[in-house]
Amino acid sequence: MAQTTPNHTQTVSGWAALEAGAKLTPYTFKRRHEITGVIIKVGSEVSNFKVGDRVGVGCLAASCLECEFCKDSQENYCDAVQFTYNGIFWDGSITYGGYSKMLVADHRYVVHVPETLPMDAVAPLLCAGITVFCPMKDNNLIESTGKRLGIVGLGGLGHVAVKFGKAFGHHVTVISTSPSKEKEARERLGADDFILSTNAEQMQSKKRTLDFILDTVSAKHSLGPTLELLKVNGTLVIVGVPDKPIDLPSFPLIFGKRVVKGSMIGSIKETQEMMELCGKHNITCDIEVVTPDKINEALDRLANNDVKYRFVIDIAGKSPNL
Amino acid sequence: MAQTTPNHTQTVSGWAALEAGAKLTPYTFKRRHEITGVIIKVGSEVSNFKVGDRVGVGCLAASCLECEFCKDSQENYCDAVQFTYNGIFWDGSITYGGYSKMLVADHRYVVHVPETLPMDAVAPLLCAGITVFCPMKDNNLIESTGKRLGIVGLGGLGHVAVKFGKAFGHHVTVISTSPSKEKEARERLGADDFILSTNAEQMQSKKRTLDFILDTVSAKHSLGPTLELLKVNGTLVIVGVPDKPIDLPSFPLIFGKRVVKGSMIGSIKETQEMMELCGKHNITCDIEVVTPDKINEALDRLANNDVKYRFVIDIAGKSPNL
Repeated sequence: MAQTTPNHTQTVSGWAALEAGAKLTPYTFKRRHEITGVIIKVGSEVSNFKVGDRVGVGCLAASCLECEFCKDSQENYCDAVQFTYNGIFWDGSITYGGYSKMLVADHRYVVHVPETLPMDAVAPLLCAGITVFCPMKDNNLIESTGKRLGIVGLGGLGHVAVKFGKAFGHHVTVISTSPSKEKEARERLGADDFILSTNAEQMQSKKRTLDFILDTVSAKHSLGPTLELLKVNGTLVIVGVPDKPIDLPSFPLIFGKRVVKGSMIGSIKETQEMMELCGKHNITCDIEVVTPDKINEALDRLANNDVKYRFVIDIAGKSPNL
Repeated sequence: MAQTTPNHTQTVSGWAALEAGAKLTPYTFKRRHEITGVIIKVGSEVSNFKVGDRVGVGCLAASCLECEFCKDSQENYCDAVQFTYNGIFWDGSITYGGYSKMLVADHRYVVHVPETLPMDAVAPLLCAGITVFCPMKDNNLIESTGKRLGIVGLGGLGHVAVKFGKAFGHHVTVISTSPSKEKEARERLGADDFILSTNAEQMQSKKRTLDFILDTVSAKHSLGPTLELLKVNGTLVIVGVPDKPIDLPSFPLIFGKRVVKGSMIGSIKETQEMMELCGKHNITCDIEVVTPDKINEALDRLANNDVKYRFVIDIAGKSPNL
């Protein structure tokens, strides 16, 4: 079943869905991908990494290196950006994601992982973490303190956002449709407040109270009631990707001179900066580790939102097939 | 038919729809409102205006005077703001708009009109003008030059936005669903470019070319294709008020780190600043003047979008009833 890609010399064992909707099965292919790991080989011209280094690879596999965004360390917005999964690398090969024992990456898309942090709980920081970190950084929530933050949705992204918000010294409100998340938000994650977004009275009583809202919801929804929670001139950043358009009523946007922004993961430089802050504040994701033979079970549970908060596959773990 | 409001001593003749959907008919009521005019009386403690001054009154009739927005000359965002029409003034009276021979206004909500500008063509600046001026000012388009601006919709708001954009030294593109507007936009208003938004090929060829877009459309629409015209980090400001939510697809927002903002008219201070710039650049609205007896005909034409670009009622003009 091994697939050959020109110039790829490393044969690796991994897991793949061989057609859309199929279960993941063991799959052998040439080179690429993991998420966190230890370096076993470095190119002869690479100076910033050495064998044995603990490193991470996020969503970015390649970019053009020449446009204004690449030159400005914003390569995640390069028009020719290629992702670590289902992307096309410089040599024309397909990028296969990280479900494999080994990964080859260009040194420009690799970050160092702080020695103090566990590799498994760090892995989701490279996507969920950086996705919520960048809008906080861009909106001056790292240097400033004491702002009133709202986090919409308490899932893989939201729970890390709560941790960042508290670590950076802000008042954090979790906004959720699930009453069951209140205890979790307040007691385990340290949120200061909780708004049940289906409760019109609670929503009404918190109008114009927040400086900044991070909306992590990936289901179709209306921004109207959420925008009303923002102060005048407040900012809401969307990082979820619903497959249907979000409803944006004009009134709360206009009457509050509010701002809605988008943000997509982050650059490698920003990812490294986040890693260092995570090391300093001891921030990681809350995860459940699964061995490769449990991947399909984990995917079924994911489909039912039954995970707190991210699954991490221990590819080196016990597996009957690899 | 005169209606009495406590503390209102000036009886005036005006025009009003006496129920929803009704035609406008002559109507006599106590005090309030016009849009541009000449001062005939000033309060004893008013020092910034004198009898004979050419002045304008916009959408704002009153605000709380005490909140952070009122104190910061942003009273248009005061939570207790009252408009010139269908608002409740400090004394509890209803504000009746400007369809009358005389208007009484608090001096804090009145602006001076430059001597060089005609009163009729200035009137719509107090709403359409300030609505498009503020987002330009807020997004640094008055001090900077040479930016690439897009104006969506070429109506009452859009045509003034084109004039401002050109006066401030920018490259202006009109984006419209009407092919017939291209000649008007380029030849009469001086726009540099025109994109027919229903032409997918044109839209595709202009992706990532604009720094700033002002969306003046008041019909329900999707922001997706328009957002794609913005460069990364570009800003789109919504000033139209569709009665249904706008469709906001997450992808173009996120992948371009784009920004969508709302903006509502402007403060009195900003309106005065706009007036002075309009005087300097000789900017007014393109209008059709109608006499009061033609108001209903004008309203019918408005409903069919048959106006270039704003009707102004000359209340002092010939009328069989007033």
